[in-house]
Amino acid sequence: MDKGLLIVLSGPSGVGKGTVCSVLREKMPDLVYSVSATTRTPRQGEIDGVNYFFKSREQFQDMIARDALLEHAEYVGNYYGTPRDFVERTLASGKDVILEIEVQGALKVKEKFPEGVFVFLMPPSLDELKQRITGRGTETQDTINHRMTVAVEEINLLGHYDYAVVNDEIDAACHRIQSIIVAEHCRGDRYLSHLAELPTPIEKA
Amino acid sequence: MDKGLLIVLSGPSGVGKGTVCSVLREKMPDLVYSVSATTRTPRQGEIDGVNYFFKSREQFQDMIARDALLEHAEYVGNYYGTPRDFVERTLASGKDVILEIEVQGALKVKEKFPEGVFVFLMPPSLDELKQRITGRGTETQDTINHRMTVAVEEINLLGHYDYAVVNDEIDAACHRIQSIIVAEHCRGDRYLSHLAELPTPIEKA
Repeated sequence: MDKGLLIVLSGPSGVGKGTVCSVLREKMPDLVYSVSATTRTPRQGEIDGVNYFFKSREQFQDMIARDALLEHAEYVGNYYGTPRDFVERTLASGKDVILEIEVQGALKVKEKFPEGVFVFLMPPSLDELKQRITGRGTETQDTINHRMTVAVEEINLLGHYDYAVVNDEIDAACHRIQSIIVAEHCRGDRYLSHLAELPTPIEKA
Repeated sequence: MDKGLLIVLSGPSGVGKGTVCSVLREKMPDLVYSVSATTRTPRQGEIDGVNYFFKSREQFQDMIARDALLEHAEYVGNYYGTPRDFVERTLASGKDVILEIEVQGALKVKEKFPEGVFVFLMPPSLDELKQRITGRGTETQDTINHRMTVAVEEINLLGHYDYAVVNDEIDAACHRIQSIIVAEHCRGDRYLSHLAELPTPIEKA
């Protein structure tokens, strides 16, 4: 059986990562969503192992010490991170995993898991990104300016990613990502392991 | 405008390259078929520039001397080759080009055009390939054995290709190749040239 692929979906805040990820999971029910670990308190209705793996600070720090996380960060006093074990067990079962994560986190994942498929979701233009951020109506001008500066810095990191997908329209963006997943499964280097299955002994190139 | 991609579709004789290429062109009417040059005499109904570019031996040898062919070979006294100019003009116009070619020719194209997307069409198994070759009913046992030996040698060259696509079922194989084409257009390194189009000056990573 083929090992699954880790698809890392990232991009600047406001580009629509969450929406694209949700639609993609509807279209590809076999795609497994990477469940994060966190030290924050579960909210009403959140289930351990489904929404998050809920951990104590001691447990989380122990995971950091054991290198059991592909990345982690601290926000407003709580830890969040990506458990390596969940990802690796799912991939070993032959299923693809999708991890939706901000840009800095994705680059940390790449250090520990370079065989992942790194997809950068791009705004159609910076003007459009600014409109999406402004359109939420919850941000001050200073915050908007700051987020736009960060977005430009993040877009500069595109060179570290395998693919750039423009989120001009959600279904079109999802179709591109689905195509990337199909294509990556056909990659010659992933395929070479199949040669051993052919009935005639064949040397690997 | 984006430059087009050169898709090189290859694989052992009998694997179904021609059929897959025809179905793919029906599904993707914008995909341009690479027209070969040849010194053989046009057959009834064949049109210069559509089926082949028909050339004299002198013209063809001049093309070889000018490095105007991405690859060429001689079969039963006639030259066949892939004119570089037709491919490059079509790519420059923003259209993708598909070149269907046997394995040795594809490797020559790769030397001169490494930025092409090299797709190896695989039989589901060697037994299945043998059945497809035998099923034509036109080959002697010696010929079948020889072709199978060549096929195994060619499959050993898979490592030189970007993708391996199993031709288990024509529509499935075409869907994989379509996905590869979409994904290749999203490749980060192809995308970096877009960054200059963003309204804020952005350094390329």
